[in-house]
Amino acid sequence: MRALVVRGPGLVALEEVAEPVADPGSVLVRPGMVGLCGTDLEIIDGRIDPAYVRLPLVIGHEWIGTVAHTQQASGARVVVEGIVPCRHCRACVAGDTNRCHTYDEFGFIRAGAAADLVAAPEFLVHHLSETVSDESGVLVEPASVVLRAVQRAAPRPGMKVLIVGDGTVGLLAATLVRLWSPACVTMLGARPQQQALAEAANVDQFRLQQENTTGYDLVVEAAGTSAAVGAALASPTRGGTVVLLGLAGSGVSTPLLVDDLVNSDVTVMGSFSYTATAWAGVVELLNSGRLDLSFLVTHRYPLADWREALQTLGTPSGARGKVVLTIAR
Amino acid sequence: MRALVVRGPGLVALEEVAEPVADPGSVLVRPGMVGLCGTDLEIIDGRIDPAYVRLPLVIGHEWIGTVAHTQQASGARVVVEGIVPCRHCRACVAGDTNRCHTYDEFGFIRAGAAADLVAAPEFLVHHLSETVSDESGVLVEPASVVLRAVQRAAPRPGMKVLIVGDGTVGLLAATLVRLWSPACVTMLGARPQQQALAEAANVDQFRLQQENTTGYDLVVEAAGTSAAVGAALASPTRGGTVVLLGLAGSGVSTPLLVDDLVNSDVTVMGSFSYTATAWAGVVELLNSGRLDLSFLVTHRYPLADWREALQTLGTPSGARGKVVLTIAR
Amino acid sequence: MRALVVRGPGLVALEEVAEPVADPGSVLVRPGMVGLCGTDLEIIDGRIDPAYVRLPLVIGHEWIGTVAHTQQASGARVVVEGIVPCRHCRACVAGDTNRCHTYDEFGFIRAGAAADLVAAPEFLVHHLSETVSDESGVLVEPASVVLRAVQRAAPRPGMKVLIVGDGTVGLLAATLVRLWSPACVTMLGARPQQQALAEAANVDQFRLQQENTTGYDLVVEAAGTSAAVGAALASPTRGGTVVLLGLAGSGVSTPLLVDDLVNSDVTVMGSFSYTATAWAGVVELLNSGRLDLSFLVTHRYPLADWREALQTLGTPSGARGKVVLTIAR
Amino acid sequence: MRALVVRGPGLVALEEVAEPVADPGSVLVRPGMVGLCGTDLEIIDGRIDPAYVRLPLVIGHEWIGTVAHTQQASGARVVVEGIVPCRHCRACVAGDTNRCHTYDEFGFIRAGAAADLVAAPEFLVHHLSETVSDESGVLVEPASVVLRAVQRAAPRPGMKVLIVGDGTVGLLAATLVRLWSPACVTMLGARPQQQALAEAANVDQFRLQQENTTGYDLVVEAAGTSAAVGAALASPTRGGTVVLLGLAGSGVSTPLLVDDLVNSDVTVMGSFSYTATAWAGVVELLNSGRLDLSFLVTHRYPLADWREALQTLGTPSGARGKVVLTIAR
Repeated sequence: MRALVVRGPGLVALEEVAEPVADPGSVLVRPGMVGLCGTDLEIIDGRIDPAYVRLPLVIGHEWIGTVAHTQQASGARVVVEGIVPCRHCRACVAGDTNRCHTYDEFGFIRAGAAADLVAAPEFLVHHLSETVSDESGVLVEPASVVLRAVQRAAPRPGMKVLIVGDGTVGLLAATLVRLWSPACVTMLGARPQQQALAEAANVDQFRLQQENTTGYDLVVEAAGTSAAVGAALASPTRGGTVVLLGLAGSGVSTPLLVDDLVNSDVTVMGSFSYTATAWAGVVELLNSGRLDLSFLVTHRYPLADWREALQTLGTPSGARGKVVLTIAR
Repeated sequence: MRALVVRGPGLVALEEVAEPVADPGSVLVRPGMVGLCGTDLEIIDGRIDPAYVRLPLVIGHEWIGTVAHTQQASGARVVVEGIVPCRHCRACVAGDTNRCHTYDEFGFIRAGAAADLVAAPEFLVHHLSETVSDESGVLVEPASVVLRAVQRAAPRPGMKVLIVGDGTVGLLAATLVRLWSPACVTMLGARPQQQALAEAANVDQFRLQQENTTGYDLVVEAAGTSAAVGAALASPTRGGTVVLLGLAGSGVSTPLLVDDLVNSDVTVMGSFSYTATAWAGVVELLNSGRLDLSFLVTHRYPLADWREALQTLGTPSGARGKVVLTIAR
Repeated sequence: MRALVVRGPGLVALEEVAEPVADPGSVLVRPGMVGLCGTDLEIIDGRIDPAYVRLPLVIGHEWIGTVAHTQQASGARVVVEGIVPCRHCRACVAGDTNRCHTYDEFGFIRAGAAADLVAAPEFLVHHLSETVSDESGVLVEPASVVLRAVQRAAPRPGMKVLIVGDGTVGLLAATLVRLWSPACVTMLGARPQQQALAEAANVDQFRLQQENTTGYDLVVEAAGTSAAVGAALASPTRGGTVVLLGLAGSGVSTPLLVDDLVNSDVTVMGSFSYTATAWAGVVELLNSGRLDLSFLVTHRYPLADWREALQTLGTPSGARGKVVLTIAR
Repeated sequence: MRALVVRGPGLVALEEVAEPVADPGSVLVRPGMVGLCGTDLEIIDGRIDPAYVRLPLVIGHEWIGTVAHTQQASGARVVVEGIVPCRHCRACVAGDTNRCHTYDEFGFIRAGAAADLVAAPEFLVHHLSETVSDESGVLVEPASVVLRAVQRAAPRPGMKVLIVGDGTVGLLAATLVRLWSPACVTMLGARPQQQALAEAANVDQFRLQQENTTGYDLVVEAAGTSAAVGAALASPTRGGTVVLLGLAGSGVSTPLLVDDLVNSDVTVMGSFSYTATAWAGVVELLNSGRLDLSFLVTHRYPLADWREALQTLGTPSGARGKVVLTIAR
């Protein structure tokens, strides 16, 4: 079968590899669409902490597929949790599977979905209803990261929200925070071309310059730069909450003004990845028809055109949401 | 009557001033003991943000007194909330009186307790039972700041706690966190002479050097320096919480390592002052006999010896907890 | 001025009474629309606990009006909190103004709004924006009761909700619970004629018979009969929550099956009235345009036709939401 | 090996049975002490819902043992979670293992610990430190039930607590609630002989008659009779919480006064069994030295004297806490 394999810094190619074998308790899934994200570029370039990657690696951790029983690809449409929790450490038994003591994840430690087949433990497989688009399905992974982060901040109807960042994660945050009926959602973006996507996400105000206000009840940082984190930290109202989602790179820091945090009674929450419960929550919301993320997929390439897809990912121009590889169906 | 008045940077003296008059709804109280804290030094030196001080000012915001009805000082022993909430802003009606939109506080905006008499709105007056020592009473104010901060972090029995700082606030944090039966409490101190007080606060481990561990469920920063905040931020376990209580000075910052906060799923909470509910909670705990803070008062001076008291406060030597001025009784 | 006064059981009449005087800190307001509710009937009939009513009484506790400055009625449109909290008891300072130790409420203890003028403390007055309909405004009071109850149950997007009861409170619950994007909302009604209103409230399923399912994450009881409470208690999923809002009458009970509650790990919450914070939350949601309750007002009568209005309230026929008296504008 | 086997209603005997075999991922454990509880009597008498029991059954779900590696019984002292969660249902992945969709439990569905050997999945095995007594260890199971229930009610230091019931669960509740430093703990007991045990649990007031007060912030019902539940429901302060732990028998109900619950703003929580996290929490508290439950074991019988043990359990006289069978060591 085909697989997009990384063998070392800059060494990435579409290769012919052996098909995976499904162990007892596992199932084979045919990926239909695979989303690419900045972390994939970091894996390819070797910029990621090597503790989190096992080379050679088939990349692809955002995907939708169909269960491949017997010889046919005619099975149910599914999404598969990327994090493989051990299910017996303290974190797992408490439901905090994102903090599992043993790190294992598709597309990082084990073979990902930019390939014709993936073997996946059955307990990680979630079915999608007919009414859910493939585009929504391919976004379950990043949507789960965002849902877990936003839930953690205990949102309330009527709150004022600021999203820092106009990329896929920021746009997902703007979309998901709507589930709690905020009074208004402002996005602090970096590229004017993203305005149309921000509007599609029902953002009330799209700005490229930080306002002089600090009155946000909830601030979600989704850009992952030191400056963006600084803007996020400067924006909450007294008693407000800042959720940090973006990764800025190993060792990158932002000055934390101690007295401002104390005097403003502000909470800053890092939020790492997603729990199994958040993943199930996103699937449930999609299946119930309360959530549709399709608008966020703006670029599609066949697997064979992976070089172009990565190029589009690395050098954004025009309105750009999620870039996906289409594989089968 | 006598009053310790600040008239400008460095201009502090015990003066003879007019007695306050109790408006309807207010009561006159005779201070018996007044605690001094670092903020008092900042007020005297003019280092504090002028927005928070109205000169000339009678200092003293930590105190216990007796209700002064008619001519006698024979009344009930009371403590008086220092923050005077407006009671109609959004913060006040939600119970977040520490974030009242109108700042008003004894010893900052209105005359404090380093004097022979104070006029106080009745709704701020709390009675102490006979079993509560004056020393516990004089510590209700800083204890309320700490209780509110610790409660906010949702402590749980069995947690591992680190207190950064060995001053009064740190020692109060070590004492109050015991109310939730932690598995162990470690204090990262600055002065070896504080070990005995740390032991009196039932600290399990007193250290002067940061350990190489990061396994704390709850970290309370109570030293208020950039380095101490850095040590606090480096210490929580994954999913843990850091509460920042110490003020480091206007504009002082600590580098926040963004990816560490995100990947470790850590929450950092600033906590400002105390709510009326936290104050009532401390009084209730003292009155119930579940809490005793007497051990923390280590230095006592008559009001007339205020210069020595301030000197002791400014240049610590030996074991030093709270420095108090004794006024009447 | 005119006022609808209750002087004893069954003794209600539109009378000419003296105009109220606004004390310092109070303001005169001209009611424009007054909602009637079942409690008003209980006051009139003398069925209510006398501890909660002071006769003679001008009724009317759900209303919108305009500030009456000088001689004109040309002022701002406002709603006025009905509960008058003391602001110094333990409950009030914690933000639990619904549990104020001193009970005082417009239309129960002090003169209500079925009159040409009301004197109201300024701290209870909330301004409505131009975009909010009078009909939404007149429903702020019951909506605050419902918002406080629903928030207390910590709703989450994707939950399955059952509303027991198809009256105004049930319809408000169906409307407000939408703020948290539930997967589906089912209403267990009593009268088929309410189906159209249920649909206007975006209810997914309107039923007249209890289903054989118990899978609801959140159940809101808004009918206030023993049978309805029984249906509510039988409906939650394991780990689910039942919120009781409806009053069934003094001494009325429902059998609580102890083992079912324990084995199902279910929480049952009574929720009394509203907090000042919930009231402000409803006003904020209306002003932000995220909430519109206009569809719920189905019957309007001039104040002079109060007998017909009460009759419509007491003997429902056809689709019936809120019955209001119109007074001025 | 020996095992105490129930084969049908009233059919219980110490039998010689085959030793269990440890599957991969499991371990053999030699029980040292087994606690008996009311549910064991219900299993023996056939009064329990048959859905929760699979006969023939080795009873025993509260126990401490030693890992039986090779031929020796010289291994580590351990306690084994009784509930065997599936680890992939929605409840399990959220950490709510007490609500696992597949019910499986030692001493109910699979062979329990009143025997010479038990085979147990390794992920359920928890080690006890040297400092923990066997008596504390044998109580981990009921203590986990109580800890989970009490934590759920979000206790706070300074609260007033009422425990209804003076049996093991009530005494455990009195002990565990101390971890949150309540202002006072009152026990409403049934038998005067339990007073000494109540005092050993640091209960402040032991009463046999319900007081005329209703001022409790937290009420824990641990007696499991209709009358006891009624007493519990009548006792909370406004805004307080009642936790129901006791099982009253299938179909047994208590009248719930609807208006009292609503007007008092009270929460009633059923709490079923324990989560894996609560179990780990009890073990952690015991291992840290912050908790000691030894005083609660009042009666010990060798396994061979099981008839006497059951008799003591069924017909209490004198001070009686936990009745245990001692097996090996």
